[in-house]
Amino acid sequence: MTSRLHDPDWRGFASDNNAGVHPEVLAALAAANGGHQPAYGQDAYTARLQELIGAHFGAGAEVYPVFNGTGANVVALTSVLPRWGAVVTASTAHIHTDEAGAPERMTGIKLLTVPTPDGKLTPELVAREAWGWGDEHRAQPLAVSITQTTEMGTVYTPDEVRAVADFAHANGMAVHMDGARLWNAAAALDVPFRAFTTDAGVDVLSLGGTKNGLLGAEAVVVLEAARASGLKYLRKLTMQLASKMRFTSVQLLTLFENDLGLRSAAHANAMTARLRSALEAHIAEGRLAGLAFTQESPANAIFASLPTDAADCIRERVRFYDWDRSRGEVRWMTAWDTTEADVDEFVAAIAAEL
Amino acid sequence: MTSRLHDPDWRGFASDNNAGVHPEVLAALAAANGGHQPAYGQDAYTARLQELIGAHFGAGAEVYPVFNGTGANVVALTSVLPRWGAVVTASTAHIHTDEAGAPERMTGIKLLTVPTPDGKLTPELVAREAWGWGDEHRAQPLAVSITQTTEMGTVYTPDEVRAVADFAHANGMAVHMDGARLWNAAAALDVPFRAFTTDAGVDVLSLGGTKNGLLGAEAVVVLEAARASGLKYLRKLTMQLASKMRFTSVQLLTLFENDLGLRSAAHANAMTARLRSALEAHIAEGRLAGLAFTQESPANAIFASLPTDAADCIRERVRFYDWDRSRGEVRWMTAWDTTEADVDEFVAAIAAEL
Amino acid sequence: MTSRLHDPDWRGFASDNNAGVHPEVLAALAAANGGHQPAYGQDAYTARLQELIGAHFGAGAEVYPVFNGTGANVVALTSVLPRWGAVVTASTAHIHTDEAGAPERMTGIKLLTVPTPDGKLTPELVAREAWGWGDEHRAQPLAVSITQTTEMGTVYTPDEVRAVADFAHANGMAVHMDGARLWNAAAALDVPFRAFTTDAGVDVLSLGGTKNGLLGAEAVVVLEAARASGLKYLRKLTMQLASKMRFTSVQLLTLFENDLGLRSAAHANAMTARLRSALEAHIAEGRLAGLAFTQESPANAIFASLPTDAADCIRERVRFYDWDRSRGEVRWMTAWDTTEADVDEFVAAIAAEL
Amino acid sequence: MTSRLHDPDWRGFASDNNAGVHPEVLAALAAANGGHQPAYGQDAYTARLQELIGAHFGAGAEVYPVFNGTGANVVALTSVLPRWGAVVTASTAHIHTDEAGAPERMTGIKLLTVPTPDGKLTPELVAREAWGWGDEHRAQPLAVSITQTTEMGTVYTPDEVRAVADFAHANGMAVHMDGARLWNAAAALDVPFRAFTTDAGVDVLSLGGTKNGLLGAEAVVVLEAARASGLKYLRKLTMQLASKMRFTSVQLLTLFENDLGLRSAAHANAMTARLRSALEAHIAEGRLAGLAFTQESPANAIFASLPTDAADCIRERVRFYDWDRSRGEVRWMTAWDTTEADVDEFVAAIAAEL
Repeated sequence: MTSRLHDPDWRGFASDNNAGVHPEVLAALAAANGGHQPAYGQDAYTARLQELIGAHFGAGAEVYPVFNGTGANVVALTSVLPRWGAVVTASTAHIHTDEAGAPERMTGIKLLTVPTPDGKLTPELVAREAWGWGDEHRAQPLAVSITQTTEMGTVYTPDEVRAVADFAHANGMAVHMDGARLWNAAAALDVPFRAFTTDAGVDVLSLGGTKNGLLGAEAVVVLEAARASGLKYLRKLTMQLASKMRFTSVQLLTLFENDLGLRSAAHANAMTARLRSALEAHIAEGRLAGLAFTQESPANAIFASLPTDAADCIRERVRFYDWDRSRGEVRWMTAWDTTEADVDEFVAAIAAEL
Repeated sequence: MTSRLHDPDWRGFASDNNAGVHPEVLAALAAANGGHQPAYGQDAYTARLQELIGAHFGAGAEVYPVFNGTGANVVALTSVLPRWGAVVTASTAHIHTDEAGAPERMTGIKLLTVPTPDGKLTPELVAREAWGWGDEHRAQPLAVSITQTTEMGTVYTPDEVRAVADFAHANGMAVHMDGARLWNAAAALDVPFRAFTTDAGVDVLSLGGTKNGLLGAEAVVVLEAARASGLKYLRKLTMQLASKMRFTSVQLLTLFENDLGLRSAAHANAMTARLRSALEAHIAEGRLAGLAFTQESPANAIFASLPTDAADCIRERVRFYDWDRSRGEVRWMTAWDTTEADVDEFVAAIAAEL
Repeated sequence: MTSRLHDPDWRGFASDNNAGVHPEVLAALAAANGGHQPAYGQDAYTARLQELIGAHFGAGAEVYPVFNGTGANVVALTSVLPRWGAVVTASTAHIHTDEAGAPERMTGIKLLTVPTPDGKLTPELVAREAWGWGDEHRAQPLAVSITQTTEMGTVYTPDEVRAVADFAHANGMAVHMDGARLWNAAAALDVPFRAFTTDAGVDVLSLGGTKNGLLGAEAVVVLEAARASGLKYLRKLTMQLASKMRFTSVQLLTLFENDLGLRSAAHANAMTARLRSALEAHIAEGRLAGLAFTQESPANAIFASLPTDAADCIRERVRFYDWDRSRGEVRWMTAWDTTEADVDEFVAAIAAEL
Repeated sequence: MTSRLHDPDWRGFASDNNAGVHPEVLAALAAANGGHQPAYGQDAYTARLQELIGAHFGAGAEVYPVFNGTGANVVALTSVLPRWGAVVTASTAHIHTDEAGAPERMTGIKLLTVPTPDGKLTPELVAREAWGWGDEHRAQPLAVSITQTTEMGTVYTPDEVRAVADFAHANGMAVHMDGARLWNAAAALDVPFRAFTTDAGVDVLSLGGTKNGLLGAEAVVVLEAARASGLKYLRKLTMQLASKMRFTSVQLLTLFENDLGLRSAAHANAMTARLRSALEAHIAEGRLAGLAFTQESPANAIFASLPTDAADCIRERVRFYDWDRSRGEVRWMTAWDTTEADVDEFVAAIAAEL
């Protein structure tokens, strides 16, 4: 028997990617096991997932499970762009900063990036790069990509999404949402998915799962079929088609059933709120010299600045990442499995060093 | 709780991809769960996998877990080729016939294909396309890709691999082995992995797992580091880097520990042997008119020809694929979970229709 | 003043690419010179070229001048294919053998090749690779590419083109013609261009010029606009958009005006005919032991087999290429500037060695 | 005979790409004509060009003639980058703004752009994006690309190039110079090419020609062979290999012989200086209300701001481009064939409207 090689009681604030799998997901994998099922998405679990996606995102929504977030983003963006298309996105977007050039290298997508204060695009910001249609010298800006929750931990309201989408559509551009942490956004906004996706004008969605307690499962969801094409082929040729897809689909299913996805994300968000409010209370009392928050924290991430040497000392006790070391900015993330005790110990560790 | 949506007692002979996950693998996933582990391969399970790969394939071997077989092949081939490189491969190779052009489209690999009688390349067959070095008009043939077991169910002996590798190396070409069913080959040959990989001159390997009872895990294994470069970056930019990699690595670990991989593959091979010998016995007795075998069956696949209408009738009882309907050729595959009763019932079904 | 560095009286039978520029073309370049003209195709010469292309290929034809034949082929094929498309073509096709993988590497086009006896596809030959639509594992065969004249020097009749095109269209595939030597085909067939292009069902054409006396100019001609898209953008992003396009377009213009293109090609064809008939006369008289023709020679190429050592001796006097040295097969090409004396001396050289 | 279709006496200030071909270049094309010459660079003119490049750029320099500037840039950058490489460049760089995504789409090059005040990078500016080596999530910044003269008409001094190159090399990055207007830089700096290329640390160069009086010819020049690889193959597979290369090479030759290139560029620069000094004189006298210069003009471009409606009126008389219409910024360029009278008339036209 393969034995445990790690400490199952150790947790940090580095990333929701470091957390494990929710027990209900493991149970679902076992339920989907046994016997033979057709490969490549012709199984009963993928069919059921499609039903649930329709229920949550609108009858016309189509789901294409994939392996990971980069894969979801590349498949989704490629499906809404011709070979000459470019994407306007925030300069902090994961597709620009953390995907090793996959959009450019895998399917030739040009990125046109715009600096933002908080990771969120607005029509005005999109407009800075959305021009030059018809000029063959310029990569044609034919899509906008926004991230929900953003890489800076912020959240678009449904109206904010709608404003970007209206601008995009008015200019012939498609709208992609990178929803690697879509569940955290839904929990933060406390509205149904469709309110800030389908109904707000999003055309194609990268639906996350891995960061919210799955083993490894994401999906592309086409919300406006008239704007996307070739999903079936693009998923395969980008090497994102799972053979035993029942096990990918059942993971995603689990999030929709019994509200596991929302429950997990709401818990992660609550742990971030607990952490931030505890720290703010300390600050209000004049402690924690040098600690300041650099972004709002409506979901499960805190961005803060503090002296670098203090950060390094804290990190020796609890693991987390620098965000921009030159500015002394760090990122603290909570996950579905972060406990109140974890938060309280982290607050204590921070207080001990500042 | 996500409930079971399928019949766990139904199995067919369509593909080892249709089988589920071995219970020991599910147990291993649970063992690897709990607590936080660094993402993207910095976890304890990936470290342990690296140790085992070194033990099985040679101290210099390096392992890079990936999501699926197409991903493994593309990452592996790209790592041994410059941008102007081409791959000589059999016309039946999975990379040519079943990957939707991923090698060409994702990393610009030109394929130079050669027809073979049995899916196996020889130095003479490779030589048909291995020429033109230095001529910039010709995509430069700088790698050979062989599949073990082949797409036709056949197996290269260590000497056969060595002959191809010697020819390749003498001409400055790297050798890739697509080992989506490497465990079945090891079980059929009854020699250690290194005898027909590292020691036979293979430079980079796609190591399969999914078809042998895993949920979804493959790996690129670099056997000759001097011939491959950039694996770390290539895996990421091709969208094959898992965030929660501990769960990918632990699956592969399971195959190496307690001989699960070999046990499962040997069982699948034995079920194929049982099926073939039963059918041959019938044929020897003058029954099963019109049934003939079109390839040897040393591993877990049988290729046979029979009247198309009979095949279709049999298929109504037991699921399997046509291979080349124009020739009346079918493929029957066994898996780690095929039972003796499954085989016997299938033989009966065939006998009933022929 | 830059002086002449070569012998202007030396000519060989290696390639029509080795010939120079027709004097009328140089004169046309001078006529197009002087003053300023808008770059990138907004000039008067490109406008005039568009008119002439309409007159020769049909009112709906659109012309996109490019730099070279590989560029024309890649732009043309890409314009008729989605990202998941594949092209069925002859295994001898230039796009497969002589473009260094440009179709695969530049725009991700998968090639599905078919062996042919004479470089010409037929519906039956196309059908060998034209299958599997709707199966995402198979690169989708959505275009056929034929070469006119073929790489083997043969010529499709209008009916032969039509047969391939009808089959292609009936299966939802587009038809591309690589017309690097289209003028030689027109001269050989003695019919208008449209008879074996537009009217025969060709959708997009690579129109050659360089091999027929130009300095360097080819074009993509869209014949069926409903099947091609994005030409303007594709030409630019594939790096095939000339800034001073007036000088590209005027070269192509020259071929259409005063019948220079047809005159030049007819002359080259006539020189091939002279060469072949002289050699055939020798053979009929029992001389030239070991010389045999391996293809018909309706245009400006002869494929022949002869003893390799004799070929090498002849080559010391007159330059030409081996085609397949293992078979003793050579290629002899004539050009717009080949003279009768060149042919007669070549015949004498051959006769002296055989 | 193809006749003239345009007014050879009409010139504007829109672009040096709108100018024609210098008569000495046409004469050189005629000199290179006649007889047969081996194709694809095996001709006498390409050999001679290689000699001259060695003389001007250093004995180790290697020249690869190509069709156009985008082609030169893509071939050059690709030759110094692995598949996971990224390029740090100015946000105004031609490779980012005017090449339709060719670097990304053709060879998968990720661009990391930095805003600059004047189109020129400095070590400090490069450092903003030059970080993250070894992190597979980040496209690896392994080259810097600078443009000489810049897209803003400014010129790097040899010391400024050296500073960027030292920083780049110290960080393992290669240095590319986009020299589409390298001749104008050489004329402006009045130093030999090597002083601001080879000797200043440039590894690979895009050498322009077309904008300086050629019909259409550019080249990649490798200055530091240890940093670039595969040029021969990359040029072909990017569709930048001319068959009748003698005519490309002889154009470039012409620029080096008899100082034609420097003479032409110096003239263009002088015409810009004449234009600017005339306008400055007017301004100093209190005329030309609303006209201001937005960049220095050491070479052949002026960037200026003026009221948009005035600019449009001027444009009705003399053609030029808006640069950023939202800011009322225009670009005025001179060419090898701009006359003093052209300048004086343009000044008069401007004065008449302001």
